[in-house]
Amino acid sequence: MHVEAIRWDGERLWLLDQRRLPHEVTYLPYQLSAAVAEAIAGMVVRGAPAIGIAAAYGAVLAAREAARDLAPGDGPAWLAAMAPALDVLRRARPTAVNLGWAVGLAEDQAAQGGEEVPARLERLARYLHAQDIDANRRMGELGAALLARDSVVYTHCNAGALATGGFGTALGVIRAGFAGGRISHVYAGETRPWLQGSRLTAWELAEEGIPYSLLVDGAAAHLMKTTRLDWVIVGADRVAANGDVCNKIGTYGLAVLARHHGVRFMAVLPTSTVDMSLASGHEIPIEQRAATEVTQWAGTPVAPPGAAAINPAFDVTPADLVDAIVTERGVIERPDAGGMARLFEKEFATPRAD
Amino acid sequence: MHVEAIRWDGERLWLLDQRRLPHEVTYLPYQLSAAVAEAIAGMVVRGAPAIGIAAAYGAVLAAREAARDLAPGDGPAWLAAMAPALDVLRRARPTAVNLGWAVGLAEDQAAQGGEEVPARLERLARYLHAQDIDANRRMGELGAALLARDSVVYTHCNAGALATGGFGTALGVIRAGFAGGRISHVYAGETRPWLQGSRLTAWELAEEGIPYSLLVDGAAAHLMKTTRLDWVIVGADRVAANGDVCNKIGTYGLAVLARHHGVRFMAVLPTSTVDMSLASGHEIPIEQRAATEVTQWAGTPVAPPGAAAINPAFDVTPADLVDAIVTERGVIERPDAGGMARLFEKEFATPRAD
Repeated sequence: MHVEAIRWDGERLWLLDQRRLPHEVTYLPYQLSAAVAEAIAGMVVRGAPAIGIAAAYGAVLAAREAARDLAPGDGPAWLAAMAPALDVLRRARPTAVNLGWAVGLAEDQAAQGGEEVPARLERLARYLHAQDIDANRRMGELGAALLARDSVVYTHCNAGALATGGFGTALGVIRAGFAGGRISHVYAGETRPWLQGSRLTAWELAEEGIPYSLLVDGAAAHLMKTTRLDWVIVGADRVAANGDVCNKIGTYGLAVLARHHGVRFMAVLPTSTVDMSLASGHEIPIEQRAATEVTQWAGTPVAPPGAAAINPAFDVTPADLVDAIVTERGVIERPDAGGMARLFEKEFATPRAD
Repeated sequence: MHVEAIRWDGERLWLLDQRRLPHEVTYLPYQLSAAVAEAIAGMVVRGAPAIGIAAAYGAVLAAREAARDLAPGDGPAWLAAMAPALDVLRRARPTAVNLGWAVGLAEDQAAQGGEEVPARLERLARYLHAQDIDANRRMGELGAALLARDSVVYTHCNAGALATGGFGTALGVIRAGFAGGRISHVYAGETRPWLQGSRLTAWELAEEGIPYSLLVDGAAAHLMKTTRLDWVIVGADRVAANGDVCNKIGTYGLAVLARHHGVRFMAVLPTSTVDMSLASGHEIPIEQRAATEVTQWAGTPVAPPGAAAINPAFDVTPADLVDAIVTERGVIERPDAGGMARLFEKEFATPRAD
């Protein structure tokens, strides 16, 4: 069993505090939906799939809060009672589509009304959680099948067990690929400003015994020019209907560099990360985070007082730089609007909770 | 007058401790050539031109040590007495050509022998120092002339007054460009792992009142896609006879990204940084520094215990990605071996010290 970012004990949500990794493995308990939203905004939990699952459990807490306060009966009463808490969850971070998706599914359940709303939301959250792990394992198999034997791969940020319900998206492919003899070495970009590569990906890879080397993000181009590298493998925070991939800042640059050096580029994501309502990546809102994430280190300034900084948290990789999008429903090579649409024609766009 | 990285009081060399910027402005005194070599290796002083000048003063100290120990008379005796100290200086760092160039000039002076060797080496060092500042001002004018009014530029690492005898190479162009109304805003990459962008470039820009924004290195591609950017302007640690540019790790990736986005790319360097003995950048040795620069932050681990990392300090940008090389002798647009050779035909390859 891999490390779990998210645990639910029936009463409380436990989140592995990812800000403290790799130094401490500490789980924080949550009993209030507003506190879950705060944990999402503050990056106790991060990674698009994990955020969606945490929000689904947050909705369970919101339903219990609503039931405690006024015992709402029918659907509209539930929705009205839960609306403020669900809005706070939905707005905790702007870029990952999974957040709005999970909250939307919770609203659909609440809209049915009745005393069993909290129990129904709990079943939904447990289902989404389990379903995400299954999806990750399936993506791992599908993505690994694209790799030749002893491939050397590069990953960015953390799209591992920590970013998901378990197993991981990009790191799921890497786990499955390594287990099957298809990966011999992993390069992991440190991923400034939050260093998810150094703190989280290196930790997951070390736990699994997968050989890896960290490097600063600026060294990726030199690595591609001087070393054999076969694939860049990343996760995603939101994917548009034309296959444009929004992911951690730095991903788009890696995709340009990969194309320049003949390295292939794979994005691995559950279909819950796809937003078919957006025609292209231009419409994806990019979260701008605080300048202090760039100008300070653990509270200590690294730049002069009052230094100005821009800090976009994500970027968008156009579909034409992507060689393969791997989802739990299948692989889209050279993605475009047609390929994305065919993937979604196979069944309903969102998994059903009952 | 701009900040000085290097001061000489006739007895001692004073180096601004750049490891402590932007928090403290502290000058450390040096009276032993071996200590100067240690300061170069330990990055008290950094930047190719500044390293060359510091080494030239280090050679003065080496000559005084030699004179103190055995009063050598003729050239061979001076060379023999100084050889160990000069070797230590020359090997302090492997990539910047200015180090070997300055030590070589010092050897030429020592080879002439006589009691006045220390005084002659002092004149050499003072000359190289003054000449570097003049060269920087000239490069500033020439580089700024390439910019249209209100240009927006991006710089990487620190190629400012701190990296040179004074004024700066890339930052010299930016200073001159801003003064002349040709630059409206500067983006500065933080430049992991040493953060020269945050610690040094931001500090110099703030001191000058030039508007700037810091960003993490991985955000450069997103910036180029979403903002008007006219030029990337960088310094260099060594340039080969075909115009290939070796500079701080991350530069090559910026050059690839600039070309992809239609942004122009300028390298600014004194001719002392050109190594006409190397046919191409493939022959430039790339310094590999300690993994702990990546896996630790100010002595605190940011990766799991024992994390593996690669840490190349420089990379090579092929000449065909460079739009202009700016030197104190003139500008080479679309550099190649022919253009480089023509620059050096104009006069002697190395400035004369007497």
